[in-house]
Formats: sequence, C-alpha cells, structure tokens
Amino acid sequence: MSEVRTKAGLAKQAAAVLNNVTTAQKNEALLAMADRLVMETDSIILANGKDLQRGRDTGMSVSLQDRLALDPQRIEAMAEGLRQVAELPDPVGDVLEAFDRPNGLSIRKIRVPIGVVGMIYEARPNVTVDAAGLCLKTGNAVVLRGGSAALHTNGRIVEVLHAALADTALPPEALQIIENADRSSVDEMLKLNGLLDVVIPRGGQSLITNVVMNATVPVIETGAGVCHTFVDQSALPAMAEAIAVNAKAQRPSVCNSMETLLVHAAYGEADFARLAEALRAAGVEIRGCEQTVRRLPWAKPASEEDWGTEYNDYVLSVRVVDGLDEAMAHIRRYGTMHSECIVTEDAANAGRFLQEIDAAAVYHNASTRFTDGFEFGFGAEIGISTQKLHARGPMGLPALTSTKFKITGSGQVRG
Amino acid sequence: MSEVRTKAGLAKQAAAVLNNVTTAQKNEALLAMADRLVMETDSIILANGKDLQRGRDTGMSVSLQDRLALDPQRIEAMAEGLRQVAELPDPVGDVLEAFDRPNGLSIRKIRVPIGVVGMIYEARPNVTVDAAGLCLKTGNAVVLRGGSAALHTNGRIVEVLHAALADTALPPEALQIIENADRSSVDEMLKLNGLLDVVIPRGGQSLITNVVMNATVPVIETGAGVCHTFVDQSALPAMAEAIAVNAKAQRPSVCNSMETLLVHAAYGEADFARLAEALRAAGVEIRGCEQTVRRLPWAKPASEEDWGTEYNDYVLSVRVVDGLDEAMAHIRRYGTMHSECIVTEDAANAGRFLQEIDAAAVYHNASTRFTDGFEFGFGAEIGISTQKLHARGPMGLPALTSTKFKITGSGQVRG
Repeated sequence: MSEVRTKAGLAKQAAAVLNNVTTAQKNEALLAMADRLVMETDSIILANGKDLQRGRDTGMSVSLQDRLALDPQRIEAMAEGLRQVAELPDPVGDVLEAFDRPNGLSIRKIRVPIGVVGMIYEARPNVTVDAAGLCLKTGNAVVLRGGSAALHTNGRIVEVLHAALADTALPPEALQIIENADRSSVDEMLKLNGLLDVVIPRGGQSLITNVVMNATVPVIETGAGVCHTFVDQSALPAMAEAIAVNAKAQRPSVCNSMETLLVHAAYGEADFARLAEALRAAGVEIRGCEQTVRRLPWAKPASEEDWGTEYNDYVLSVRVVDGLDEAMAHIRRYGTMHSECIVTEDAANAGRFLQEIDAAAVYHNASTRFTDGFEFGFGAEIGISTQKLHARGPMGLPALTSTKFKITGSGQVRG
Repeated sequence: MSEVRTKAGLAKQAAAVLNNVTTAQKNEALLAMADRLVMETDSIILANGKDLQRGRDTGMSVSLQDRLALDPQRIEAMAEGLRQVAELPDPVGDVLEAFDRPNGLSIRKIRVPIGVVGMIYEARPNVTVDAAGLCLKTGNAVVLRGGSAALHTNGRIVEVLHAALADTALPPEALQIIENADRSSVDEMLKLNGLLDVVIPRGGQSLITNVVMNATVPVIETGAGVCHTFVDQSALPAMAEAIAVNAKAQRPSVCNSMETLLVHAAYGEADFARLAEALRAAGVEIRGCEQTVRRLPWAKPASEEDWGTEYNDYVLSVRVVDGLDEAMAHIRRYGTMHSECIVTEDAANAGRFLQEIDAAAVYHNASTRFTDGFEFGFGAEIGISTQKLHARGPMGLPALTSTKFKITGSGQVRG
C-alpha cells in the first residue's frame, strides 16, 4: 500500500479516537506540543539548515529562503500560536439547534469534527504547526503534504509533535506527514474519497487550481483576491487616500490587498491627483485606463489583462468609471469575490454596494486588508475561503467542523 | 457557444437580479407558478404522454413509467409543493452574526443566495418543479438537467413556469433547462466553474458517483444509505420489532430505510425469532450471518457483499454481534454515514452510540425512516446530504444559501 493510503488510513483510525477526547485533553496536548517545539529548537533549526542548504544549492529565491528559514524567534512564535489555539473555545459539541417534534422525537444538531483533513501547502513550516494545532483542537486528524523544499524541517517538526503527543490522550497517529515529495503523492491525496473528508490547499494560484480541478474529495478553496476599492463621488478625500494606500501598499503580497482602484469620474480632479501621488509615494506603479493616463501623465496604460491580474506587488490598475453601476459591473466582471470596498458618504450607494456585490467580504469606508481571521476576532485562521459552500471568508475553528443530528425517541416509527 | 454554457451564462445574469428581489416578490412568483401549472394541466399531460409513449416503445420498466407519469392529482401536488415553499420563512438576509471590533468596525454575517445551482437528476418531473421552487425561494438561479426520458414533460413544465414568471419581478432566465439529452451536457455542467456555484445530483448511485468523481464545480452529495439498526441486549422486544419492521418495510426503496439489522447475541432468543418472523410477515427476505442462519433455518446465508449493499428492496442482512463495540465496528466498516439507530434501554450504551457513530443522523429508539426534511419540520427538502461539508443530513432552505460579511467602518485602515 502506498505511503499516502497507509497514513490516511492510520489518520482515519485516529480520528475515531479523537472524536471522544475532551476539550481539556486537546488543550493539554496543544500546550505539550508548544513546549516540545521550544525544547527542540536546536534540532529543528538543524533540520531546517539542510533544507536551506539544498535551497541555496538549487537556486531558491531569497524571498522563498526567507519564508523557509527558522530561528528561535520563529519557533517560539509557532509555539505561541499553539498556546493561543489552546485558549480558544472548542466548537465541538456545541448544540446548534434543538427542537422537539409533535411525535415526541427530540432532535439536536451538534457540532462534530470533520474527520480527516488533508492539507496541501508549500514551503512554509509554520503551516505545519498551524494546521496541526487547528485540526487537533477541532478533533480532526490531519494528513499534511508540505512543499518538498521544507521536507527535512517538516519531518523534524512532526517528529517533535509526535513525541509531545505520546504523553497525552491524543493518538500521535492523528498527525501524519507525507514524505514522498513527488507530485504523485498530491494526486493520490486528491482522489482519496472515503479516507480524507476534505482537502484544503494553501499556497499560490497554481497549487490551488490543481487541487480544485483534480480533487474528487471535497475541497475548501482558499484563493486569489483581485480586490477593488471604489472611490465614489462623495468620498472624503483624506479617507479615500488613507484606505487606498493601506489597501494597496501596507502588504501588497497578500490576497486581501487591493489590485484595482475604481474612481468616480466626478470625484474631484485635484483629490484624484493627490490620491495618485500618495500611492506613487508609497512606491506603487499605476497602470491606468485612458482617462487615468490623461489625468496622470506619469501613469502607464493598463492592458485588458491588467484588470484581471492579482499583482501581489506594488502595482495597481486604476480606472475612472461613470458611477456606481459601472463600478459594480467592473467588479462583477473582473473580481474574484474576495474583498471589495466602497468609499462614499452616500448611504444609498453604500447600501447598494454592500447588498449587490457578491463577495466574501464587502466594505464601506474601511480597508480590504481587514479580511482576516485575527482582525475579525476569530483568534485563529485556517485560511480565507473564496468558495460559497461550507465557509466563506475568513475561517475560524468552526470551519473545521461538521454537524450531526442526534435524535432520541421512545419507539417512534414513521406512519 | 454550447447550450449549457449559454444557458448557465443567462442564469448567472439572472442571479444578480434575483439577489435584489424581496421575499414578497419571490413568494408571489411561486404562487403564480403554482397557479399556472394547474391551469396548464392538459398541455403538461399531453407532453407527458409523448415521453410515456416513447418509454413504452423503448421498454421502460413499469416502475419507471409510474415515476414519470403525470395526472391532474400529481400536477396539483406539485403546485401545492410550490405554495408550501412560498409559506416558509425566507432565510436570505438573515443576520447570522453581528459584532463590533475594538477599532470600531461593525461586522455582520448575512445569509445570501449561493448564486447559480446546477441540478442533475433522473426522470422524475416533480424534481423539476421542486428544484425550481426551492432555488427561486432562496434567490438562486437554477440550471436543470433532467433525465432524457422526461424531456418533453420537463420542457413543457419549464415553458409553463417561464410564462408564469413573465408577469412577476423574477427574471424567467433564472430558470434554465438543458434540452441536450446527450451525456455530454452533464459532463459540461460538471466543469462549469465560474458559472455554476454548486451542482446537486439527485438520483441513483451511478448518477451520484459520476457527479462526485468528475465535477470540478463544488458538489453537494446526496446519496446512498446503508443504514443499520442495532438491537441491544436490553432492547424492549415490542419496540425493537416495531422499529425494525418500520425501518425496513415501510418504504424499502428510499435511502433512510434499514439495510442491515445487528442483534446483540444476548438478546432473547424467542424475541429474536419473533422479530424475524415479523419482518418475514412484512415480506422481507433475510440474509443472515452464521449465527442468524442457525437460529432462523429459513434465512439465506449472507455473503460479504451483502453487508455493503443498499438493497432498496424487501431484503435485509442480519448479523448477531457480541455487543455494542462489535456493532459499532460493523457500522464503521460498512455504513455510509447516513442514518444509524440503537434500540436499547441502557442509557450509557445509547450515549456512546450517539456520540461515537459518525453519521448524518444517529437515533436512539426511533426508526431511521425519520431522516427527512419534512419529518424534521424543515417544511421542504432539497435532499439528504451524505457529505460532511456545508450541509449534512436533511437539507432545508438554508442549505441553498451562502453567507457574506458586510463590514461598515469610518475610514479604518490596518496598522
């Protein structure tokens, strides 16, 4: 039997045990994992050094090396993440609905673990720890398949976590990591119906597209954000400027940053120029529509391709629109239904935008950068769902649960 | 452009309109649809006659002909279903969560339509009307792809519904039916990411398996039920008998009927014999394990294949088990996580069974036949989900909704 199938089978057996552990037992395990990670800092950094050496030898980019590299502070931050998850309320066992039927049946809808979660991600060792913590807290077993560039690091981290679990009520088998770095192990996971209950991809667009297009196991899609900010005619210029600069330039590499700025044609010409200058001063390259380029001679012209591009960089497409309807039509055509914002003092326009734009998060007078589990107060984030089923937007612990109906009777039969 | 892509595109445009209609407008449309169906009874029966003639000519089984055949009573029943859906509360717009953040952001999680639902089903014309009503009530556009054997009937029903919608606030384009009876139209729907937000299969196992294994669009799986009833040592014999006979024989063709009876080895021998005789008297053929056959010489021996089979018929596999743990192990191995029941007077065993068995619905002392949206009091049912994401068990109107976060601020930016 293949590594993937064997380990998923062990995870499934462990999931049945996890279904019966208490919140206190899960929290103890998370704290033990945190302590053990810190205790094993040296051995983890040693393993990480092998991955980094290989990365340098094979020409890994400096930014990827930075994502991969661990030091005592980063390991402490991972441990701290586990401690925070331990403090969060446990959604498992929550009674979501409770009702009695006229025939005397008592029906309760209860939160339960999903079962076995498959996690497919890239060379970020912190995802290994994050995913382990979030899944175990919600009573799920997890099969991890990280990027091959972090193979030694992830392997050592999981060894350390297994050692921690050995002294707890949680079965170490609940945490599995796939060592086969070949693409075939991903392909196999995607078809593992009956053993994996869900696959969650975390990473770049090509990884996510591969999962979505090839999985027969249910997927929670976390993905691309071509996010817009629409500056309406009545927007307060200082607010529009602050929101636009924050949405674009505070951290351009993430999915909730702005990629396209839409500006009402009747928005003040001087205000528009100041807004553009503020973006430019923040290091942002502007690619504009005809009207934009006419107003900002230093801007480059945008191509059709620009409107659909998630730059994840200090680049912004800018388009002048005739009003709310044209802005919304643009967003419908090019947006990815992630995070969309209107800056306006017009309550009716704000209401229409929030109602009519179909996205995970719609904002009135606030930066799209707030689409985040921590910013929403969830205390943890598995990712930001860009699909409409199961979970949409920032996903906290409840997104890693399912439900079941418990029905108690006294001999009822159906007539 | 293909029929499927063209019609899905029209549905997507209509979905944007549907997002803004009121509950009253949707209910008016549902009532208009009901009235029109009744008014057009003759023309629908005429179209149905063509399908029935073709069915008889091509050797369609009598039971399939019965499912397909419409008469005035059945059309009135479809209309009555629409009227009932009109009376149900509209989940769209419900505020599921509302909270303010320390930075002053006000966040509300709102129920919204999913968008465009693809429905793939067999030759049951009532599904055409059901799906149209449930989807429109929840603000969704729907692309219907019914079985080719009902092509004339479904086509005429949709014409009638379109005529009804023409006088309402709802765009008729929200309701699309695929006329291409070739398998290729199903294949195309399954890959229509970006146009269809979800596909829901309704029908036999091969239809569902095809959808699950080939769709890149998210799927809500409704499916097979290999449901068990475990008669514990302490079960009251009269109750065990009533529940078992009801679960098996009240309507064997449906997914929530029992396929396997598990009996505690220490359950009274005479009670066991009486229970088996009651099943036999109800017309049930028993295929038993060794011990069962020893006790019931008239029973046939069960093969390994029997334990995993959904008979959907007056056939039952019966196994004697050593106790609760062996019963649960059997269910874990052969069950489809649909509906599982324990009959017992032992509260601890009942508690363990309800907690440890991982199924959409777990019963103590009641027939598995109650797993049904109407029996649960939901007033409607799109199907019974056997997956763990999004919805599990009987699905009412909320299962046809998604959510979005509406965030209102006063210029907040992320620090």
